[in-house]
Amino acid sequence: MTQINQLRNQDEFVGFYLLKELEVKQTNANPPKDYLDIVLCDATGEMPAKFWDASSTDKETFFPMGLVKVRGIVQTYREKLQVKIMQIRPANPEDGVRLTDFIRSAPISSEALIHTIQGVINDIADEEIQAIVRYCVGKVEEKLAHYPAAKTHHHAYFGGLAYHMVRMLEIGDFLCGQRLFLNRDLLKAGIILHDIAKPEEMVAELGIVSEYSTPGKLLGHISMSSQWITEAAIRLGIALDSPKVLGLQHLVLSHHNLGEWGSPVQPQTPEAVALHHIDALDAKLQMVEDALATTPESEAWTPLIRGLENKGIYRLKW
Amino acid sequence: MTQINQLRNQDEFVGFYLLKELEVKQTNANPPKDYLDIVLCDATGEMPAKFWDASSTDKETFFPMGLVKVRGIVQTYREKLQVKIMQIRPANPEDGVRLTDFIRSAPISSEALIHTIQGVINDIADEEIQAIVRYCVGKVEEKLAHYPAAKTHHHAYFGGLAYHMVRMLEIGDFLCGQRLFLNRDLLKAGIILHDIAKPEEMVAELGIVSEYSTPGKLLGHISMSSQWITEAAIRLGIALDSPKVLGLQHLVLSHHNLGEWGSPVQPQTPEAVALHHIDALDAKLQMVEDALATTPESEAWTPLIRGLENKGIYRLKW
Amino acid sequence: MTQINQLRNQDEFVGFYLLKELEVKQTNANPPKDYLDIVLCDATGEMPAKFWDASSTDKETFFPMGLVKVRGIVQTYREKLQVKIMQIRPANPEDGVRLTDFIRSAPISSEALIHTIQGVINDIADEEIQAIVRYCVGKVEEKLAHYPAAKTHHHAYFGGLAYHMVRMLEIGDFLCGQRLFLNRDLLKAGIILHDIAKPEEMVAELGIVSEYSTPGKLLGHISMSSQWITEAAIRLGIALDSPKVLGLQHLVLSHHNLGEWGSPVQPQTPEAVALHHIDALDAKLQMVEDALATTPESEAWTPLIRGLENKGIYRLKW
Amino acid sequence: MTQINQLRNQDEFVGFYLLKELEVKQTNANPPKDYLDIVLCDATGEMPAKFWDASSTDKETFFPMGLVKVRGIVQTYREKLQVKIMQIRPANPEDGVRLTDFIRSAPISSEALIHTIQGVINDIADEEIQAIVRYCVGKVEEKLAHYPAAKTHHHAYFGGLAYHMVRMLEIGDFLCGQRLFLNRDLLKAGIILHDIAKPEEMVAELGIVSEYSTPGKLLGHISMSSQWITEAAIRLGIALDSPKVLGLQHLVLSHHNLGEWGSPVQPQTPEAVALHHIDALDAKLQMVEDALATTPESEAWTPLIRGLENKGIYRLKW
Amino acid sequence: MTQINQLRNQDEFVGFYLLKELEVKQTNANPPKDYLDIVLCDATGEMPAKFWDASSTDKETFFPMGLVKVRGIVQTYREKLQVKIMQIRPANPEDGVRLTDFIRSAPISSEALIHTIQGVINDIADEEIQAIVRYCVGKVEEKLAHYPAAKTHHHAYFGGLAYHMVRMLEIGDFLCGQRLFLNRDLLKAGIILHDIAKPEEMVAELGIVSEYSTPGKLLGHISMSSQWITEAAIRLGIALDSPKVLGLQHLVLSHHNLGEWGSPVQPQTPEAVALHHIDALDAKLQMVEDALATTPESEAWTPLIRGLENKGIYRLKW
Amino acid sequence: MTQINQLRNQDEFVGFYLLKELEVKQTNANPPKDYLDIVLCDATGEMPAKFWDASSTDKETFFPMGLVKVRGIVQTYREKLQVKIMQIRPANPEDGVRLTDFIRSAPISSEALIHTIQGVINDIADEEIQAIVRYCVGKVEEKLAHYPAAKTHHHAYFGGLAYHMVRMLEIGDFLCGQRLFLNRDLLKAGIILHDIAKPEEMVAELGIVSEYSTPGKLLGHISMSSQWITEAAIRLGIALDSPKVLGLQHLVLSHHNLGEWGSPVQPQTPEAVALHHIDALDAKLQMVEDALATTPESEAWTPLIRGLENKGIYRLKW
Repeated sequence: MTQINQLRNQDEFVGFYLLKELEVKQTNANPPKDYLDIVLCDATGEMPAKFWDASSTDKETFFPMGLVKVRGIVQTYREKLQVKIMQIRPANPEDGVRLTDFIRSAPISSEALIHTIQGVINDIADEEIQAIVRYCVGKVEEKLAHYPAAKTHHHAYFGGLAYHMVRMLEIGDFLCGQRLFLNRDLLKAGIILHDIAKPEEMVAELGIVSEYSTPGKLLGHISMSSQWITEAAIRLGIALDSPKVLGLQHLVLSHHNLGEWGSPVQPQTPEAVALHHIDALDAKLQMVEDALATTPESEAWTPLIRGLENKGIYRLKW
Repeated sequence: MTQINQLRNQDEFVGFYLLKELEVKQTNANPPKDYLDIVLCDATGEMPAKFWDASSTDKETFFPMGLVKVRGIVQTYREKLQVKIMQIRPANPEDGVRLTDFIRSAPISSEALIHTIQGVINDIADEEIQAIVRYCVGKVEEKLAHYPAAKTHHHAYFGGLAYHMVRMLEIGDFLCGQRLFLNRDLLKAGIILHDIAKPEEMVAELGIVSEYSTPGKLLGHISMSSQWITEAAIRLGIALDSPKVLGLQHLVLSHHNLGEWGSPVQPQTPEAVALHHIDALDAKLQMVEDALATTPESEAWTPLIRGLENKGIYRLKW
Repeated sequence: MTQINQLRNQDEFVGFYLLKELEVKQTNANPPKDYLDIVLCDATGEMPAKFWDASSTDKETFFPMGLVKVRGIVQTYREKLQVKIMQIRPANPEDGVRLTDFIRSAPISSEALIHTIQGVINDIADEEIQAIVRYCVGKVEEKLAHYPAAKTHHHAYFGGLAYHMVRMLEIGDFLCGQRLFLNRDLLKAGIILHDIAKPEEMVAELGIVSEYSTPGKLLGHISMSSQWITEAAIRLGIALDSPKVLGLQHLVLSHHNLGEWGSPVQPQTPEAVALHHIDALDAKLQMVEDALATTPESEAWTPLIRGLENKGIYRLKW
Repeated sequence: MTQINQLRNQDEFVGFYLLKELEVKQTNANPPKDYLDIVLCDATGEMPAKFWDASSTDKETFFPMGLVKVRGIVQTYREKLQVKIMQIRPANPEDGVRLTDFIRSAPISSEALIHTIQGVINDIADEEIQAIVRYCVGKVEEKLAHYPAAKTHHHAYFGGLAYHMVRMLEIGDFLCGQRLFLNRDLLKAGIILHDIAKPEEMVAELGIVSEYSTPGKLLGHISMSSQWITEAAIRLGIALDSPKVLGLQHLVLSHHNLGEWGSPVQPQTPEAVALHHIDALDAKLQMVEDALATTPESEAWTPLIRGLENKGIYRLKW
Repeated sequence: MTQINQLRNQDEFVGFYLLKELEVKQTNANPPKDYLDIVLCDATGEMPAKFWDASSTDKETFFPMGLVKVRGIVQTYREKLQVKIMQIRPANPEDGVRLTDFIRSAPISSEALIHTIQGVINDIADEEIQAIVRYCVGKVEEKLAHYPAAKTHHHAYFGGLAYHMVRMLEIGDFLCGQRLFLNRDLLKAGIILHDIAKPEEMVAELGIVSEYSTPGKLLGHISMSSQWITEAAIRLGIALDSPKVLGLQHLVLSHHNLGEWGSPVQPQTPEAVALHHIDALDAKLQMVEDALATTPESEAWTPLIRGLENKGIYRLKW
Repeated sequence: MTQINQLRNQDEFVGFYLLKELEVKQTNANPPKDYLDIVLCDATGEMPAKFWDASSTDKETFFPMGLVKVRGIVQTYREKLQVKIMQIRPANPEDGVRLTDFIRSAPISSEALIHTIQGVINDIADEEIQAIVRYCVGKVEEKLAHYPAAKTHHHAYFGGLAYHMVRMLEIGDFLCGQRLFLNRDLLKAGIILHDIAKPEEMVAELGIVSEYSTPGKLLGHISMSSQWITEAAIRLGIALDSPKVLGLQHLVLSHHNLGEWGSPVQPQTPEAVALHHIDALDAKLQMVEDALATTPESEAWTPLIRGLENKGIYRLKW
């Protein structure tokens, strides 16, 4: 099987791919003919493709996010590579291919990420804080194994949210050693809870966000996460006005730092100040890493990155 | 008894007043002497006062927010009137004076305001919405009778919060008649709930806010109000993801309209759009009304008002 | 005749429509052929249409904003409905169709709106204010019966400007009853005059603004409206520095509230504060109403609305 | 007579000065005594002064903006010079002193400035433009001889407004020679008219603005100037919709460039673009010149200047 | 030879032109055919062109920024003129045509501009300032003869940077006569140096900027220009902390006035304040001039201009 | 000796202190008497003090930043402690007290900080980068041992700048282990160089900044640091356009991230993105740590902190 980032002009090839996008279009002929305008992808990248003269059956057979077997030829169109599809059929069980092999995902396996997060939760010394964190994580346990952290902004891939948490937990652990006034339990809990409602804010499949949910639009993940803490405290019989509940809610509510970035209050505990900056540091460095990883080594500049003041990143070499 | 807004230069007078502010200060003499630097107020206004040569007993007898009987003389100091206190003593039960007679308050009695609000709640047709509103109002029932709506911004007096609600309910009622797409139950509930946690966000006595509470600073009244709805739903057995709970929380969360004004989400239901604008309209008109009421008729311009783009209001006359 | 919002895929139909937009385009064939790229509309909505193989005569026969009779068939193109036109001819007098039946318009007839506005003017008690309002309205009397209030922002349809006035007058009347410090004559006059020069700022036909006029661009409707008051006062012999003239000009100049929204001064009279907020309230609620009305009942969310922080409106249902 | 910028510590002196500011204050003694807290000024600068033990007669004799004869001694108070007044009396006709000798004023005489402006008006070739300019200047002719251009921002002294005009006319004249697409009549007229209503916007005496007038606050000088053009056109029988009237009004309305700086429209004619930048260039350079002139030569840095991004100006020397 | 701004529909013509843009595209036919999508230009304007059925040889023969001889016919496509190319070949030495005759350029010849700038440098009285200026100009001497001042913003054509300098020097010279506190040497030097590194910040050919260089993106022309002064001082043995070096660097660093416009410090010397405003005045007036020059006389409004608050310029006529 | 943070009301005490601030003032008596208005400090805090009836000799004996021996009594004035000084004399060599014992300083000794920084420099593998860093550090070697990092914002004490560097180096080292795409040499160098010119931007003694230097105001530490790199490269014979020089300058120029925060370019290399966020993280956490350390344990809230959105920090306890 040929990986997408290894296809070259004029290659003829056969392989399995994911139909990341699919649209039925018409040629400009009179009368117009239908064809399938497709984006094929695997874990190494993606490439546009055309399947000309699509039949009525074809239009009902293929759908976005499905796996397919393709025979095609690579051509150059407007200075970019694209595939002319000669044959295409849906993958079937006998093919033995798995969706998750064809999508971009965090560099660490979901299982390992979840295992790390569960380990950190087990290490939280305060039992009430631990119970609240466990309750909230429990609400999205299944989704946490695969959700991205955002639609496009950063960590936008399979397992991205858990990966973001794990990296932040590492930085938080280091800072707690460097700055003794930080409460380790609170900071751990804040890192795990700060985006915990994102899997309910966004609708995602295989690490790709298709849209925001209605509660996501009407409440936002910050208020949702904060309300899960309220719910946890009530269900667990912890006083709503206890300092621990207050502290956890404040961490979640303030982690975007400013009102115009979505936080109704600004960080006012040591851990809340730390949380915001750990979040920013990890997200921005991940944007850099992802841009470098998806830009060919031969390119000195990555494309412009919205979250980095709309600048590209330069590979300094000597 | 002489009301403060009727005192004139050189008047000698006797009367009961509220010690709104009191600080022990020293004269610049060597050695310095102690005196009491005071603000006297009643329901018609306030005036600075000095009590020279305060004894040790005096310093322990008087405290802010206490009622006193004063014999004094009015003088002019730097073009403003101030009182030189000749005699002062605390009021006692036999004097028959009540604190609430000496403070600025809404033009409608607390009892009438609460009665109106309860009537509106009773008229909410949807039983679940009604129960949630009743639960949240129940958490601050006693305070709702006297809390101001803000520290200084608008409706900053005894009963101000309830008065703001009642006026907004009137406007909301009118608009529901004019615009049939508005859901009357939701809009009523939104008006009553939008600032419902303010009595826990601020510490106030007699309509005067002294400071923000710790939960007020760490969470803010918007998130607190929203979480009360969560709490109400859980206690009442209403599903947290039901459209009614979602709709009420959205009303509360979005009513400041923009992130920089404290709302984590923007209005996205018809009632939420209406709520924000009714709130703004009533608050701004009340600022105008209060500025006009507390500025002498003889002045063409009121002082500058922060909430009105820091402009004064002009009395146009012909 | 079939209304546009009732056409379904594969329908064959005959009907009268308005050519809202029309452009001659070429196919990509070599040599290219001309066809007409059209938007058909009636009072219920609009739909794209193509008339292939347009002759030279066709290209000279049809023009935007003309009424036509069409025989066509509905097809699906890129998941949206569009009309393939089989036959098309201009409407003629015998057809008995009127342009105004084919355009979107305010829910109240122009005649009724104008009648209401004239009634309010007649009720203005102050004769000088009344005369100035009458003079300014007189300058655009004919256009007031059909002009929209804006190009796209809100009330962008036939009679929209008069409709906006009438609704605002209702709210203003209610508020004058609720807040006795508001001068009813001034507020009425301010509502009628605040956008009175819009018909000279914009070039519109049938409620559709095609562009801004040169005076509209160089002066703007705020300054133009204010100068009409100057003109009225001079023509009517009212002193330019009288408080009434000053008050009316201030209402007009300040009604956008902030410099960045186009107002050179901020509201500094009670009526000016009220006017700005009534204007905002009515415009925003109308955006909600219009978005709901033009979005199919089956859609939970309306499209994004620029004037509402670029958010959609959600239909809460239970 | 000793000029204020030449007084040194311990000097005993006699001289005439202007009472720029005067307030009756009380000492902290018990009972307090009255004294006069004064700012003395002449054309070279100003200095605080105290007149202890003021009698009742004194308090009625002296008033701000009056000329006085003073015998005093210079002392140092908190590292700054101040005058202890030994004797003080009002100036009288026999003293032969003139107010205008004691105030800061433009470096060119009012008469010369007005003469230059009238000469430029006479040179305007277009008779209608000339007539409109003449009409508007006629409304403030007397005040133009002495008004400042602003309260504190720039050119805040006797004759400052006319001086600003003359300097701008020089720059405009140069640019018309350099850029032939500029209409010399329009640019001249725009420069003269852009701030022409300032003498009605502000209340000033001897080049010192005490406050803004009511029309100044409610309309602003930009709208007032624009409306004078309307008035001129009507009185002179020039069509209000003629391109000349439109062009002049646009120059005035747009000269602050942005809405947040007070202009309801942005510059859209060549002369309007030029006018805004000539105005900015002249105002900023004058702020520099005035700061350098009023800062002792021995100081390397002037005080901070609000209009120059709140920075000081540095005297670079080698 | 026919100039581009004189071509009319249906003209058949032969002439030399510059291939300003060239892209190989495919028709929508199946299989698609290659054609050349071209923009032809000369000094009077530009026009799109198509060369159908391009051969493999054609695709290797033509390239952007090359001169060609074309035989073509003018057609109308979507209401705009475009050329159908019948024959095309590259220009060759015997044709005697020069690239510089086909591009837009400053209204004064490069030679004259450079001569003027060199003359100004020779007139700088201070030898150290003169030497620094000469050193920096020496680094880009060849490029200064043809570089534009910007990619699209203003003076975006052959010789634009030098032309901008010369016009600014004229204004600076005038202001030094009007305002005697300005140091003529410093202001001249600041004008010449303020954009001196732009030829290294941008990659341009024939006055057309194709992209920013890597140092241009990583440092920006302001920091680069400032560092050239450092380099000059070291090479010339002038103390880095001397007031002249400090003054020149400050002029360069502050000339964009605000941080958000790219200046790390704000103007704090008289010449720096002047430099910023001369730069703004000249750039804005040039935008006006260029917009008027490239808009047909028959159009009342120019297209919108980003640097002028995104407004068009109106040709007032009477 | 009694430390300042242990003095209580009515304590009589004798001790050595630093005169952090000293001003000669006058009482309001007539005639006024001189007294010394003083701020005493030691390493644990500071307290206001008064020395009444100062003689002429006293006024010439004491000066700010001098050490003194004081006998005094603690009193309460306006609810705050202040010292009434009974006796005061300057410290003399025999007293054996050292200035550095009386000032606030970093929690790690200067010697240790400098030793750490030098160790990091020695570990830079790239010789050219190492040489440039060494050159720049060499320019401020003596000052680096004691300079603060800012006037008030953060690390505003003895050794604060070096302490900030060392903590950032620790974080940077951790991140290089976590994110392998970061170049360790560049990041180390960027951390050491990013504020390296601050000791020349500010005038400081004993960790207290009194003002900004003239080069500090005219160039700013960002441009100064960048130019030191230029200077280093020239002196060391390293090409100015080499990628290493470019990379180091970019790190320095971009580390404030945005133009409005003083950076003329935005971060565009991986290390530049990291540097900005490490700087922000360390500065903000240090503000928290310093606020907690200087607020009595008994206070739940610290004072408001400008750099933390003007919020206080809350001590959450349970």
